[in-house]
Amino acid sequence: MNGAESLVHTLLKGGVDTCFANPGTSEMHFVAALDRVPGMRSVLGLFEGVVTGAADGYARMAGKPAATLLHCGPGLANGLANLHNARRAGTPIVNIVGDQATYHRPLDAPLTADTEGWARPVSGFVRTAQRASGVGADVAAAIRAARVPPGQIATLILPADTAWGDGGMVVEPLPPPPAPRVDQGVLARIARVLRGNEPAILVLTGAALAAEGLALAHRIRAATGARIIAQGSNARIAHGAGRVPIERVPYVVDRALAMLAGLKHIVLVGAVKPVAFFAYPDKPGTLYPPDATVHVLARADQDIVEALARLADELGAPAVPLPNGAAARPAPAKGAPTPEAVAQTLSALLPEQAVVVDESVSFGRTIFADCAVAAPHDWLQITGGAIGDGLPLATGAAVGAPGRRVIGLQADGSAMYTVQALWTQARERLDITTILISNRKYAILLHELANVGANPGRTALDMLDLSNPDLDWLRIAGGLGVEGARAETMERFADLFSQSLSRRGPFLIELVV
Amino acid sequence: MNGAESLVHTLLKGGVDTCFANPGTSEMHFVAALDRVPGMRSVLGLFEGVVTGAADGYARMAGKPAATLLHCGPGLANGLANLHNARRAGTPIVNIVGDQATYHRPLDAPLTADTEGWARPVSGFVRTAQRASGVGADVAAAIRAARVPPGQIATLILPADTAWGDGGMVVEPLPPPPAPRVDQGVLARIARVLRGNEPAILVLTGAALAAEGLALAHRIRAATGARIIAQGSNARIAHGAGRVPIERVPYVVDRALAMLAGLKHIVLVGAVKPVAFFAYPDKPGTLYPPDATVHVLARADQDIVEALARLADELGAPAVPLPNGAAARPAPAKGAPTPEAVAQTLSALLPEQAVVVDESVSFGRTIFADCAVAAPHDWLQITGGAIGDGLPLATGAAVGAPGRRVIGLQADGSAMYTVQALWTQARERLDITTILISNRKYAILLHELANVGANPGRTALDMLDLSNPDLDWLRIAGGLGVEGARAETMERFADLFSQSLSRRGPFLIELVV
Repeated sequence: MNGAESLVHTLLKGGVDTCFANPGTSEMHFVAALDRVPGMRSVLGLFEGVVTGAADGYARMAGKPAATLLHCGPGLANGLANLHNARRAGTPIVNIVGDQATYHRPLDAPLTADTEGWARPVSGFVRTAQRASGVGADVAAAIRAARVPPGQIATLILPADTAWGDGGMVVEPLPPPPAPRVDQGVLARIARVLRGNEPAILVLTGAALAAEGLALAHRIRAATGARIIAQGSNARIAHGAGRVPIERVPYVVDRALAMLAGLKHIVLVGAVKPVAFFAYPDKPGTLYPPDATVHVLARADQDIVEALARLADELGAPAVPLPNGAAARPAPAKGAPTPEAVAQTLSALLPEQAVVVDESVSFGRTIFADCAVAAPHDWLQITGGAIGDGLPLATGAAVGAPGRRVIGLQADGSAMYTVQALWTQARERLDITTILISNRKYAILLHELANVGANPGRTALDMLDLSNPDLDWLRIAGGLGVEGARAETMERFADLFSQSLSRRGPFLIELVV
Repeated sequence: MNGAESLVHTLLKGGVDTCFANPGTSEMHFVAALDRVPGMRSVLGLFEGVVTGAADGYARMAGKPAATLLHCGPGLANGLANLHNARRAGTPIVNIVGDQATYHRPLDAPLTADTEGWARPVSGFVRTAQRASGVGADVAAAIRAARVPPGQIATLILPADTAWGDGGMVVEPLPPPPAPRVDQGVLARIARVLRGNEPAILVLTGAALAAEGLALAHRIRAATGARIIAQGSNARIAHGAGRVPIERVPYVVDRALAMLAGLKHIVLVGAVKPVAFFAYPDKPGTLYPPDATVHVLARADQDIVEALARLADELGAPAVPLPNGAAARPAPAKGAPTPEAVAQTLSALLPEQAVVVDESVSFGRTIFADCAVAAPHDWLQITGGAIGDGLPLATGAAVGAPGRRVIGLQADGSAMYTVQALWTQARERLDITTILISNRKYAILLHELANVGANPGRTALDMLDLSNPDLDWLRIAGGLGVEGARAETMERFADLFSQSLSRRGPFLIELVV
């Protein structure tokens, strides 16, 4: 057995049975091993950002890591932006990067690069395999590292000779360390704060935003009067009818400041402190009042839901009913496309257990909140702010959640970064409806230009303008194998959206706004 | 004057008057400064790999650096693969990366990343501006660093507050250090070697492959019997009728070994040692005989052409006539598209002073040599092996060489990595004919799979196959604003190619092979 075969066997033993790949020469033995060892679903991406974003989306839905397969340092580099997003999501990924043979690296052939150096900032684990006989142990360690709570990127660099060399050994899975429990003293202290009269808020993310965590936070809120809110960007939120509706810390600084004004206690539940996405002249970077105290109920790597459950018990918080799951849904919207109209139509038509992948950027900021009465669904966000994640995330989510329709809320500027994902959606016949919000500009940047007090002229506006020429999304998608249609009214949008749900495979609706 | 304005002024004073940009929020003051300070040509790319590859192509043709404008660490990451190629080409680039405000970085907002760490492996200079008043000096230092021979990537990271802060100062250009002269003792020793009877070869790259350097090498060859060859991948080669024809070290290991067999002396003229692109089981990594001696006539950072001139004089090498520039050209090819047929048609129809950008990968390996009788032209290669460079390089080359037609020889698989470049070609109305070689597979990997002795099955073949669905290049290009047509015969190809030359702006020929 060569090293590559031991790698595939060990991945499968460790429960990693899906590989998103964009291989090159140094990975040919891995590719050959995928043939010889049955059981690995291999999904090809035509760009590495598709591969890494899809691995993120897969794990968010499947609850376990996929493997990637990337080619040398520059191939890894192409995947870094979405690994950055995955790192911020706490997503487990076994990130495999083929590379120059160990003895060939010193020759500094053209494609030789600092693969480890590039991997390190996004990875909780980086290892370069040294010999074929150690590859099994290396990948078992990588799987374990990926599963360290809440999940992290484990990069295993596989020099070509460690893949083709003989002596590969299959290694049994190593159990990941359990998530540390929250200390009782911390719980007691936070319970005291919440029992007090000072205004407090719980900021949730990660597992706290699954249905169980939300219900626990809902109990704590009912018992104490503390507010609850989600972090600004989150890997996955259980949402829709029958779930506890939750707002998120707003992106726009003034709105966030207004929302968090007057608070005395910020209780972090797996979340980071609320801070502005960017600094602006004359605006604060921290979004909560300077005199508020920040408490950490649970770090991201701790057992967050268990901590919430114990806190609810500590507070003696009684069970409270969840929102009515059978609330009436609105009718689909009519007229011109607006964020409110899109949310209304989604609330009307979203299928049960849909997965919404939201890279709608500035157009879509209110859509999440307005979908609280839609059929129960999961809502996935771009977590690290590196745009170009939406189409890949949707691709991976569809692989990771078969049988559930994936709805992509996708801004046009962002879609262009990883547009190659549409081809993978077509190839794998994934059940994805992409709502391509076509405003033909970097709308967020026009806001930001105003935010920084600039008074833009022609040159500046040209840098933020996606027309001249207009992107023709139906031709682009069609060229990549995805059928689509254009909607300029909400009536047409509702028709197309409904049609897309009744067919298999991907469909793109260019919504002109 | 704010820091961003001082930056644009200082760039212009330093001769940097073209900026390839994909800006984000933290760069809005830079964008605003582009308005207020006239004189900077700003070219928008819809993906950062387009921006960095275009900056590479621009500098290869214009002979001076462009600036880039990228957004934070993940935006830089998206541009790294083509910066890797640019580094291998010895291309000067002033690589500007906007980033979090200095005081905001410690808050670790979602888009915060290790920008410096990612920049370092491709950069000869990395600096993060600390205050607005220093930005002018920072960019002057970056321009100087970019111009250190033969050229390098100088990354200047610009935190948002150093762009918007007041007190910006315009700084006069700093002269780059001159390229060090080659020591006389080295020249004399190499002259002795070449006067001897042992088989020797000069391996050329960089400035040695411009017309003057080639003519000097031609003189040395005529006087000594030494052979001359170009490095495997080169930034730019003066080629075509009237120029000294030169072969390149072959990519395929067995061909390279055969070509370099029997040599006793390898004389590097700005070049790296001939080594295999990748290691293969049971093949050597070094392509020249183990008993050959390697001599360095000139390092890449030295004055290579001056060294060749002195060596020719030292050898008393007389002037020799150049090849006849008026040699008859073939007629355009007919029948089925093959590499030989494409080269024949290019030899027949290539316009004077065309710029050929070659990312034809496996299909096109012989086309360069077969174009030696074409009208005089420059030949640009992908230098670092990171595919996805061709469309951006062509884009930048067209900006850097106005009035010259750019011909892209472009493999389909590679084109997909940075397909967004077509939009910039359309927007800037660049005179580029892309010959999109559509074989609907990663052909090189099929060879490589055979090379490593694998016997591929369905899973492996699926990983190397770009059909299912077929990429429809005319729809993709059209969706991005570039008109195109399909050729399945060489007759049709010749017609389309000729038509493309008589029009302004970009055109794409999908050549089905």
